[in-house]
Amino acid sequence: MASNVFPLFEPIRQELEEVEKALGRLIEESAEPLNRILNHALLDGKRLRPSLVILSGGLFGSCGSAGPILDLAVAVEVLHTATLIHDDIVDDARLRRGKPALQRRFPTGVSVLAGDLLLVRAISLVSNLDCPPVSRLFLQTIFSICEGEIEEALMPRKTALKEQSYFRVAELKTASLCSAACEMAATLSGGAQSHVKALQHFGRNLGIAFQIVDDVLDFTSDKKTLGKETGTDLRRGLVTLPAVYYLQGAGRDNPVSRYLSGAKSRRGLLEALRTIRSSGAIEASMAEARKHVDAGRLMLKELPESGPRETLLSLADRVVDRRF
Amino acid sequence: MASNVFPLFEPIRQELEEVEKALGRLIEESAEPLNRILNHALLDGKRLRPSLVILSGGLFGSCGSAGPILDLAVAVEVLHTATLIHDDIVDDARLRRGKPALQRRFPTGVSVLAGDLLLVRAISLVSNLDCPPVSRLFLQTIFSICEGEIEEALMPRKTALKEQSYFRVAELKTASLCSAACEMAATLSGGAQSHVKALQHFGRNLGIAFQIVDDVLDFTSDKKTLGKETGTDLRRGLVTLPAVYYLQGAGRDNPVSRYLSGAKSRRGLLEALRTIRSSGAIEASMAEARKHVDAGRLMLKELPESGPRETLLSLADRVVDRRF
Repeated sequence: MASNVFPLFEPIRQELEEVEKALGRLIEESAEPLNRILNHALLDGKRLRPSLVILSGGLFGSCGSAGPILDLAVAVEVLHTATLIHDDIVDDARLRRGKPALQRRFPTGVSVLAGDLLLVRAISLVSNLDCPPVSRLFLQTIFSICEGEIEEALMPRKTALKEQSYFRVAELKTASLCSAACEMAATLSGGAQSHVKALQHFGRNLGIAFQIVDDVLDFTSDKKTLGKETGTDLRRGLVTLPAVYYLQGAGRDNPVSRYLSGAKSRRGLLEALRTIRSSGAIEASMAEARKHVDAGRLMLKELPESGPRETLLSLADRVVDRRF
Repeated sequence: MASNVFPLFEPIRQELEEVEKALGRLIEESAEPLNRILNHALLDGKRLRPSLVILSGGLFGSCGSAGPILDLAVAVEVLHTATLIHDDIVDDARLRRGKPALQRRFPTGVSVLAGDLLLVRAISLVSNLDCPPVSRLFLQTIFSICEGEIEEALMPRKTALKEQSYFRVAELKTASLCSAACEMAATLSGGAQSHVKALQHFGRNLGIAFQIVDDVLDFTSDKKTLGKETGTDLRRGLVTLPAVYYLQGAGRDNPVSRYLSGAKSRRGLLEALRTIRSSGAIEASMAEARKHVDAGRLMLKELPESGPRETLLSLADRVVDRRF
């Protein structure tokens, strides 16, 4: 359950339980063996994005335990799961949410199709809300996620990366959905334009911070804590923010460049990881994440004080403090 | 160009050229190397589905060279291409439209994402038509296609298949889009309810016939004519209608069952293919395809005589007479 993962979600425990039930119904509607596939994919998420929807709706008095806000929360989690399934195929990831990645348990082709099914399911849920601006934003967001994933997949893998390219991909593939989750919930709840904008920027900053911390944890955490393997980005030649920062300050011949451009030995990888960890690049990345969280928190201060606002503010802090 | 492929499309040459231009713009909008990927995927289709849209719209006086009908025609072809990309990943197909299948030219993950991008693009095009019944049908159709593809991918591969299961998959993965293409165009053009229904059934029957002939050609055609490899279904253990019919009449020990349940030798495959070809199962399958075409043609007769109706009637015949 999501509320076990993030204790700060206690105020929206009931709403999150409704999200779990709705996901459960979606699984049960499918016949064997598709229901087992969807069950494997949909369970055990952190439920960050549906929480953003519920809390953003709550700011305007919308209830997340039934009605449009709940449907939107479910749609956002279903979309997120669909993108994770396809993302894990792109990366050939081994673990996800503490279990084997879907394409390691079921044929790759079936995993592709299960992702498609969830994608269409998410779009249908949003389409049934009969709120054209929300539908448009949702489709635009999926498009951005695809663009970001494609840009990342096609990035050169052997050289340094511009900071700008890293942030562009983080914006497209991660921040876009966090931003849209907040903006769609505010729009659906009839929030004033200035409040909708504030929440959009909050979500965007939170999303970028979340991605940076995700990339940092790939260097600093371990498989058991994270529920997925670590050290994978560099192993796949993917230059994330800690590596970007390290390479900005390093000379031409260094363990990271040697690993990226040379044969990919286990020993070379461990040396490159160690080098980045002890270079100050992790701290610089975390400072950047904190900067985005602070910018996001500032945006929220434009909204009147309320319980959901306090939870969103704590959530922002939690994103940089998290260990998983 | 589509009009080179099916000369009977001559009356809608201009409209099909507009579809090609719109597809070209969609490709050009993307940066390198995504534009090359989309170019590879989108070019050289038969354009059967956009033709169904244009001709169905034409029945009600809608013009397919601009406006909603053109957008719908493009959306249907973009969706079809997206499903082909993912389908080829499921089958690990080698050839498509006379060229290497996308995932043989670009990394599988990138192909998955390119399919996603086209899927969302197609949905956006339809969503922008601002016609909720058409949007709903389009989403329902994509859902059906995914369901059909998943059912097919998860089918038992070593035994006979019930005729009923074959038709269920053909209905979901192929007939649904042909049916929806006709129905959406008629709805968008303000056709009377009885005419919309007639076209829906026409499209459905045409789609089933198309799928049967597709499966027959996998037994009877060759790579050069078809633009994709042949004999692939049985090689992958997929029991299509000719094999279903053959197995219904065959004893327990026969070359097809032996191939399906045993080690997959090249020699065993050739013997199984030859056995099916000479068994009358091909002719029985073609008779079934013809039955669906005739049922479809009968539906069309409920509509007033017109140029587009004549072309649709010829198109139905062409579906069973085609060699590719």
